[in-house]
Amino acid sequence: MSINLDSIISQAQIMASALPPVPVPFVVPTGAALAGWIDHTLLKPDATVEQVKTLCAEALQVQFATVCVNPSNVALAADLLRDSGVGICSVVGFPLGATFPKMKAEETHQVINFGATEIDMVINIGALKSGNFGLALSDVQAVVDAAAGKAHVKVILEMCYLNLLEKIIACLICKQAGADFVKTSTGFGPGGATTDDVSLMRRVVGAGMGVKAAGGIRTLQDAVRMIDAGANRLGASAGISILKEAQCV
Amino acid sequence: MSINLDSIISQAQIMASALPPVPVPFVVPTGAALAGWIDHTLLKPDATVEQVKTLCAEALQVQFATVCVNPSNVALAADLLRDSGVGICSVVGFPLGATFPKMKAEETHQVINFGATEIDMVINIGALKSGNFGLALSDVQAVVDAAAGKAHVKVILEMCYLNLLEKIIACLICKQAGADFVKTSTGFGPGGATTDDVSLMRRVVGAGMGVKAAGGIRTLQDAVRMIDAGANRLGASAGISILKEAQCV
Repeated sequence: MSINLDSIISQAQIMASALPPVPVPFVVPTGAALAGWIDHTLLKPDATVEQVKTLCAEALQVQFATVCVNPSNVALAADLLRDSGVGICSVVGFPLGATFPKMKAEETHQVINFGATEIDMVINIGALKSGNFGLALSDVQAVVDAAAGKAHVKVILEMCYLNLLEKIIACLICKQAGADFVKTSTGFGPGGATTDDVSLMRRVVGAGMGVKAAGGIRTLQDAVRMIDAGANRLGASAGISILKEAQCV
Repeated sequence: MSINLDSIISQAQIMASALPPVPVPFVVPTGAALAGWIDHTLLKPDATVEQVKTLCAEALQVQFATVCVNPSNVALAADLLRDSGVGICSVVGFPLGATFPKMKAEETHQVINFGATEIDMVINIGALKSGNFGLALSDVQAVVDAAAGKAHVKVILEMCYLNLLEKIIACLICKQAGADFVKTSTGFGPGGATTDDVSLMRRVVGAGMGVKAAGGIRTLQDAVRMIDAGANRLGASAGISILKEAQCV
């Protein structure tokens, strides 16, 4: 692992001084197709069974990519959305990311057992800030391995806490570990998605990996700006309102 | 379990209409003794190794009750504070409380293995809000059982989300499960400790159980008000500043 890490750090230092080129931008989906780019999200800790049911009914109606719920609501959502085409996204080590790799792997196994098809894990932010990149990598690797062949993994970097070099290293760690997406924010931190961060992530991971923007995406304009910047998935609790603006609900 | 729950709910309904009397108040510890009532807390997700070392050095100097750190920092804190008289508090299911009882029990085992002597778990808030009190009870019970004989358990109720009846039921559930403390807040929610909540908790759990106030306790006056209201433990990141005000640092 140390050889990989050394190579990641030197690659990141080069990128920090001269960012890779911007890949060809995505075409923003129009009308109802936009729903397929959105994780319809309800992560507040006081979410009730009734609210989860409403979330799932809305997702079914407009065919969001997924509903994104806390682990304790996965079984209910999976039951309501069985064979619907809407995926089940859940969160792991959320929202602080400050638990053990083994715990994140175990939580991944459990949410998958209950029906999750996508995992949004939080990276170990303190490890990144302490230069303990080996721990950050083994953390992501543990979840990617636990989900292998069963669910896609998005890694939340909580960009608001990171400096440029840490942001680049975190993206490269996720790519190295075989994660499917990097994601900007939990929505619980002091800052949400920015177009600058989305653009940076896209430039670092290239065209072959996903970039999810989340945190503070409330309007159609927010959604379009994030996709223009390089996002190919959006996390939002305002998905219905965004689709109404796009006149497809 | 259902008999216990029925009895808890009827007891809570009676209490909600006529609260139990206020137990005899604690004498606020003076001078350096106040440190022994404080969990010296660093739970921000970007906490670095250096910051954890500073936290532990401060705790050693003034003999706080514990340092309270995220799971990924428990091993470091336990190593720095071995045989010091300062306890190691860590958090479980934190701060949303929206994961599985089995996960919370497993995280409890792990932090204890790494040296935790106190566990601050978050109750399943969504279960309380949905009237699923059986899940809330089994959640607390799972952690109490996992910690039995090895660590004290405090249960964070995140009072800002609960109505009066839910607050009382949550306290009674914790008492029923054999938890050692109820605790007001995570510090990550929209509201922190209030004297009204601390007083309510003390009246419901009686004199024989702990009440920890946390969230927004920044001054000596805050600390004194919480103890006057019935708290016998305080969680604060401002412990050193509070002790300076008390002129004992």
